[in-house]
Amino acid sequence: MKIGILGTGMVGNALGTKLVQKGHEVTMGSRGAHNESAQKWAASLGERAHTAPFQDAAAFCQIVISCTGGMHSMEALESVRAEPLNGKILIDVSNPLQQDKDGSTILGFCNTDSLGERIQKAFPQTRVVKALNTVNCDIMVDPSRVPGDHNLFICGNDTAAKREVTRHLSDWFGWKPDNIIDVGDITAARGTEMMMPLWMRLFQGVIGHPHFNWQIVRGQ
Amino acid sequence: MKIGILGTGMVGNALGTKLVQKGHEVTMGSRGAHNESAQKWAASLGERAHTAPFQDAAAFCQIVISCTGGMHSMEALESVRAEPLNGKILIDVSNPLQQDKDGSTILGFCNTDSLGERIQKAFPQTRVVKALNTVNCDIMVDPSRVPGDHNLFICGNDTAAKREVTRHLSDWFGWKPDNIIDVGDITAARGTEMMMPLWMRLFQGVIGHPHFNWQIVRGQ
Repeated sequence: MKIGILGTGMVGNALGTKLVQKGHEVTMGSRGAHNESAQKWAASLGERAHTAPFQDAAAFCQIVISCTGGMHSMEALESVRAEPLNGKILIDVSNPLQQDKDGSTILGFCNTDSLGERIQKAFPQTRVVKALNTVNCDIMVDPSRVPGDHNLFICGNDTAAKREVTRHLSDWFGWKPDNIIDVGDITAARGTEMMMPLWMRLFQGVIGHPHFNWQIVRGQ
Repeated sequence: MKIGILGTGMVGNALGTKLVQKGHEVTMGSRGAHNESAQKWAASLGERAHTAPFQDAAAFCQIVISCTGGMHSMEALESVRAEPLNGKILIDVSNPLQQDKDGSTILGFCNTDSLGERIQKAFPQTRVVKALNTVNCDIMVDPSRVPGDHNLFICGNDTAAKREVTRHLSDWFGWKPDNIIDVGDITAARGTEMMMPLWMRLFQGVIGHPHFNWQIVRGQ
């Protein structure tokens, strides 16, 4: 499959590397044509790993993964424009995190808005699926790092797109489909993005590493 | 123990009933002196169940549980004033939920603020502990309704108070202390209150009943 990854950070690296290893053609998109970290990533992986400006990465691929820093995702996508994204599935992995004046991590917007919604609204012809944003990137690409069953939350307006993404997450990374919970339309991204403040507390203050996940345990 | 419960709703009923059954003296506080649902509650439980205005309920007790509707908690506590609460542990169970214009459930404030913080700031001599707000009231008082291990998140500025509340939650309701995660100072209430939007999605759209809980699964 031809996959475009928008973003050259830790998340883009982890996803891109795993997808190349699984045999896919991956283009890592970045702001300029010559992004150092994208080129370093591609050089380490051989001929199935490519680099390109955001727009070319989006145009080249069958499916787009948006994993730029969440406060910059809209800007990156606006540089792509709508046409290359029309009809395609876009997996939005980012959270709009920023630092507050006191140094604490907050969301740049939330509660009545979310990054997933903003993307869907700006690109109505794109099939936006919010997924993977509630786990660290090491867990995204290897859920077995956390033992037993634990969950991902997926949402979006297009049911077929969510089903397809669920299949991909299973094939690409080994997520059990039963552990991927469809929490509704794209406005549910408010809820999954709002997991971040507690996630950060658990990461920084309690567990001390990012290799953990949520599990929903059901009673009667 | 003498326990004051501020709030006459579903949560106050569930907590108050269980605490009376465990042998405690419980006063359910309400806005006026003659609250119908508080009186009905007390009448069903016998001599250890009392009703009173908020202020008397707070003055009477050794420990206060605040479980009014989260958007009205400050108003209720302001009617108590500081003196009856000074030095006491106050367990804040509420979430500041409200309906958005489109009918969806949102938080009245969040991200850079929380109800837990507002209470602690308004009552600096009170030992505020945020707890139980991430589960339905049936689970609060009987965690065994959800099988196996699952977690509560507790936070507050006073470590000894958090330890005491952890003991109470174990003695009163059967929560295993190991499953109660201390996520830090009272500003961590932002994170636990912000679990609500996803919780509501799971409740209303996925699971269909409120008897579930989060578990944190740790990897390496």
